[in-house]
Amino acid sequence: MKKLLKANEKIVGVDIGGTKMLATVYNRDFEVLGTCRKKSKGKAAKQGSTEGRIVTVLRAALEEAGNPKIHGIGVGSPGPLDPNTGVIIDTPNLGWKDFPLADMLANEFGVPVVVDNDVNVGTYGEWCFGDISDCRNVVGIFPGTGIGGGIIVDGKMVHGFSGAAGEVGHMTVALDGPYCGCGKRGCLEAVASRIAIAKEIAALAAREDAPYILENCGTDLANIRSGIIAKAIKAGESMVEGVVRQAAYYIGMATGNLINILSPEAVVFGGGLVEAMPELFMEEINRGVADHAMPFLRKNVRILPAKLGDNAGVLGAAQLIAERLHPEK
Amino acid sequence: MKKLLKANEKIVGVDIGGTKMLATVYNRDFEVLGTCRKKSKGKAAKQGSTEGRIVTVLRAALEEAGNPKIHGIGVGSPGPLDPNTGVIIDTPNLGWKDFPLADMLANEFGVPVVVDNDVNVGTYGEWCFGDISDCRNVVGIFPGTGIGGGIIVDGKMVHGFSGAAGEVGHMTVALDGPYCGCGKRGCLEAVASRIAIAKEIAALAAREDAPYILENCGTDLANIRSGIIAKAIKAGESMVEGVVRQAAYYIGMATGNLINILSPEAVVFGGGLVEAMPELFMEEINRGVADHAMPFLRKNVRILPAKLGDNAGVLGAAQLIAERLHPEK
Repeated sequence: MKKLLKANEKIVGVDIGGTKMLATVYNRDFEVLGTCRKKSKGKAAKQGSTEGRIVTVLRAALEEAGNPKIHGIGVGSPGPLDPNTGVIIDTPNLGWKDFPLADMLANEFGVPVVVDNDVNVGTYGEWCFGDISDCRNVVGIFPGTGIGGGIIVDGKMVHGFSGAAGEVGHMTVALDGPYCGCGKRGCLEAVASRIAIAKEIAALAAREDAPYILENCGTDLANIRSGIIAKAIKAGESMVEGVVRQAAYYIGMATGNLINILSPEAVVFGGGLVEAMPELFMEEINRGVADHAMPFLRKNVRILPAKLGDNAGVLGAAQLIAERLHPEK
Repeated sequence: MKKLLKANEKIVGVDIGGTKMLATVYNRDFEVLGTCRKKSKGKAAKQGSTEGRIVTVLRAALEEAGNPKIHGIGVGSPGPLDPNTGVIIDTPNLGWKDFPLADMLANEFGVPVVVDNDVNVGTYGEWCFGDISDCRNVVGIFPGTGIGGGIIVDGKMVHGFSGAAGEVGHMTVALDGPYCGCGKRGCLEAVASRIAIAKEIAALAAREDAPYILENCGTDLANIRSGIIAKAIKAGESMVEGVVRQAAYYIGMATGNLINILSPEAVVFGGGLVEAMPELFMEEINRGVADHAMPFLRKNVRILPAKLGDNAGVLGAAQLIAERLHPEK
């Protein structure tokens, strides 16, 4: 990757997730100078405002880096948000409505700030720093509590008219299907997110068809998380495996749709579910793609798991601010 | 629109459809100097090769224009095709496999030739010459015998890695639904194209639930075309109307998906079905969008019928070659 920053310039990448916050200070070569991670949920998270905690995490990362002079901050945040102004439009989860996140951080740290959707910056990080930087057309899909997506067309992140393009989790894949968090029915997220999977597995446990799950986490959806699901499958819980395979196949079908629409060269899959069960997910995703993408469009398309884990977001956000500071033209 | 061509330059737009061929000669101001249309199916079409007939149509349009010196030819053709090389990859309908259409026409007429997908050039024409030229992000959907799509992101046609992006008709909208022409099941095209609609209406006629259709065209799908369907609905055939409304709603649902994925500012609908029944189609499409697009993404999106009819393709193709001759940088 071409070096954009000047020799002494330092930048910070910030990733604001539903469950954690992460800030990392980088030098010109994207070497880590300092980093800090905090939970955004739970007891500790309830003290003070979300924006206050972001500043705290940023300051802690800077302190670990020896408090260098920084030149810009890139932020990935849950949306919808306006990437042009850095205003978060509506994130009930974090208590934000029309919140000027970029301006707040710019005032606090006295440097330029760029804000983009968390899944966009994750996709951007995987694109720039993963194994697919040679591809000009990329889709990123991140199944977790919800299902987010990022789209790169001809080397540029797609924001669309609203600024919030890439809501692949809200493709309707089952007309009159189950309710989704967005209020409509049958979204991909409603049949294939961690919550959709946990719901089915909880029902199995309630019927005593998933004894490992029942014994280890009961029937509370909040406890049925990616790690324990992977363990139950390893323990031989075949109906649990069936539930996960069906969800992953739906993601594969949706991926096939995206290949037909956008013709990407690579589709990269991140998020907790895929990280916990990469082989199973990639197998079913590939099956879904083979069944639903047109042969000419799916030829030579690379379908691969994300490589950078939690660092994709901070790296992508840092790259965005580096590009903003030194635009290539 | 900015004038790209020099004062004396003339260009030709060609639209090769499954049922007709159209060529129009334009001057710098996109005024029509000559035009020719021929059927591409039927008895006349069976004489000679497809490429021979294209040359004939082009020569006839040029003759009507007084045989001026031309500077370039833009062509819209059914795909898949490679827009970089102008090679048609596979169009069984026209008898082409790996056929170098651009090279053939460039040799024949001695001018630069650009070839793109027929629906892409139709969308491009509606974008450049319709009511939406102020929009940077546009989707075009053309339901007919099949369902094609064209996508413009940030002012540029999306071709993707394969060159054949925009196959919106092959989004799977009903897992395990009816067979599609592409061999898979449950594509939008399999539930909402003219053939999908005709199939349902033929069944109604066979059961004597659609007497107007039965009397006027029997139960042969080939005869159940957009015009007669519109007449049957006007004659009060309520189950025929129900079939068309359901298909149009599916198109609306798929449009909602595309809005969630791409966040366009305008979605334009062309093709024979929409032209024959614009009010009914736009009503159901709007209902589908309201049900399936996220509120923030569908806000202020313009959903509108195409304006240029058969001329969208030749105009879009002509604009493409004008841009190729005089690229803006």
